[in-house]
Amino acid sequence: MYAITIPEPGGPEALVWAEVPDPVPGEGEVLVEVVSGAVNRADVLQRQGFYNPPPGASPYPGLECAGRIAALGPGVTGWAVGDAVCALLSGGGYAEKVAVPVGQLLPVPDGVDLATAAALPEVAATVWSNVFMIAHLRPGETLLVHGGSSGIGTMAIQLAKAVGARVAVTAGSPQKLAACAELGADILIDYREQDFVEELAKATDGAGADVILDIVGAKYLERNVKALAVNGRLAIIGLQGGVKGELNLAALLNKRAAVTATSLRGRPLGEKAAIVAAVREHVWPLIADGVVRPVVDRTVLMRDAAEAHRVLESSAHIGKVLLLTSEA
Amino acid sequence: MYAITIPEPGGPEALVWAEVPDPVPGEGEVLVEVVSGAVNRADVLQRQGFYNPPPGASPYPGLECAGRIAALGPGVTGWAVGDAVCALLSGGGYAEKVAVPVGQLLPVPDGVDLATAAALPEVAATVWSNVFMIAHLRPGETLLVHGGSSGIGTMAIQLAKAVGARVAVTAGSPQKLAACAELGADILIDYREQDFVEELAKATDGAGADVILDIVGAKYLERNVKALAVNGRLAIIGLQGGVKGELNLAALLNKRAAVTATSLRGRPLGEKAAIVAAVREHVWPLIADGVVRPVVDRTVLMRDAAEAHRVLESSAHIGKVLLLTSEA
Repeated sequence: MYAITIPEPGGPEALVWAEVPDPVPGEGEVLVEVVSGAVNRADVLQRQGFYNPPPGASPYPGLECAGRIAALGPGVTGWAVGDAVCALLSGGGYAEKVAVPVGQLLPVPDGVDLATAAALPEVAATVWSNVFMIAHLRPGETLLVHGGSSGIGTMAIQLAKAVGARVAVTAGSPQKLAACAELGADILIDYREQDFVEELAKATDGAGADVILDIVGAKYLERNVKALAVNGRLAIIGLQGGVKGELNLAALLNKRAAVTATSLRGRPLGEKAAIVAAVREHVWPLIADGVVRPVVDRTVLMRDAAEAHRVLESSAHIGKVLLLTSEA
Repeated sequence: MYAITIPEPGGPEALVWAEVPDPVPGEGEVLVEVVSGAVNRADVLQRQGFYNPPPGASPYPGLECAGRIAALGPGVTGWAVGDAVCALLSGGGYAEKVAVPVGQLLPVPDGVDLATAAALPEVAATVWSNVFMIAHLRPGETLLVHGGSSGIGTMAIQLAKAVGARVAVTAGSPQKLAACAELGADILIDYREQDFVEELAKATDGAGADVILDIVGAKYLERNVKALAVNGRLAIIGLQGGVKGELNLAALLNKRAAVTATSLRGRPLGEKAAIVAAVREHVWPLIADGVVRPVVDRTVLMRDAAEAHRVLESSAHIGKVLLLTSEA
């Protein structure tokens, strides 16, 4: 098969479409013939040499895909060759074939075409596990999403609105904020022009956000704690703004607040399977009903993954960038 | 009645036993004739002028007491004049009488004498709400308790052991560590002589603590994050070692860990009542069965509260220091 390899870490040109051995599905795994993958920030870090795959993972980038089951490994039940699926991966999605533990497989939701389904697993699992399983966002509460027009952001807005929460977003342009509004966001903050702590306070009568979904990390830590409501939960899923930040524990204590930080890729199989099962139970019906939809910025041929990375690094996209293994 | 008043913030001598008006129980409150109160770190901060009572609270210090119900305010059911009770307070425990919202009343547990029951409400509510309701300590997990010989520490050790967890403690002397061991602590760390991160790693094959109950705050923040296990929860309930600390978000993210900070005093009535109800359901039976017991360092006459504060500030005590309104 062909896959995107990274002979030497570097810029987008470090991504090389090359012939490699086919993966072999192990115990409890299936082989998926990939129709499409999708791009995540973590892939950019991996390409740059800053995020090595966890032990046992495919060496190729790609944390999600859609396609058809081509073979079953030993001990697999409940799935058949030919099934249309999408999957959460610990790597290997930028390839024509990938071996997937069955706990990370999802059916393609009703109403979504096969290639587009690759836009869903990573964002649905990340948002559901953080905003709902960890931070327990409840109806009537306010969620602040940083990077509202990102793949994660567009899913977070829709899921939070679907459960009856109020949604505030930050984004870097009026166009991106308009896209967030179209998905249901109630409070729109242009972080290039406005202070999000101040704007959120204005919009919530000083109450702040019950839950914050953050991709920035250190650079926003102090302001995120300020923006939290009493009993607020700050869920950090990315560190685009640095790793070490000052935490004001008195502010946290006075608000009885919590800071959590997670990543999906490093979790053991059992935890990933539990999250995927929760996504199938809670998110998939909302997609099938048309309440929540995948947001795709553009599709690119997988062999041109470098182009997709340039788009992501320019932050010009709204939603997900998909990689197709062949012309449609 | 008489109460300990604080005419001017300052050292222990700032505590003045003086005649003051009796409190009047409001809607949903009872008047308790106090037999004993107990001393908490927060009382020392209040005496020093650093911790003002929340709005509506008694101006006198004292976050817990035991005694008998002397009168019922309007709308109180389920309690009768003469009932022996102990109570969680938002202030006013250093006094001969105190008005208490019924949601913060507890019966005196079987097997505990009335005066000693004042040692229980604050530590039971703090430990139960943080270690179990927020951090969800589970059987087989490891709890690290800083200040294992404090009132909070002695309760945390016993409750964690009662649910089948493993307990590590830090304390500042071999005598204090021996007291912790006697209560069931498995891993004993003298923080004056040893590095707790290193000792805990040795004792847990490098796994670390699933839950940490911390009273130190900023000074321990970095080391506490290092000492956390994967999926670990750091529950901060005191800031004796400062307010602002550097948080390594990458370390937190790699462990998928959480930092929470809470205080009990500032919580609204409903939240306090929910915690007290949980304590009555889960902790009181363990006390009645003799599995968990109040640990009392000494008793002092309430009018000599200054002496009790000197003991607390010297950190010479093991367990709680009680204040009696009259000679036994």
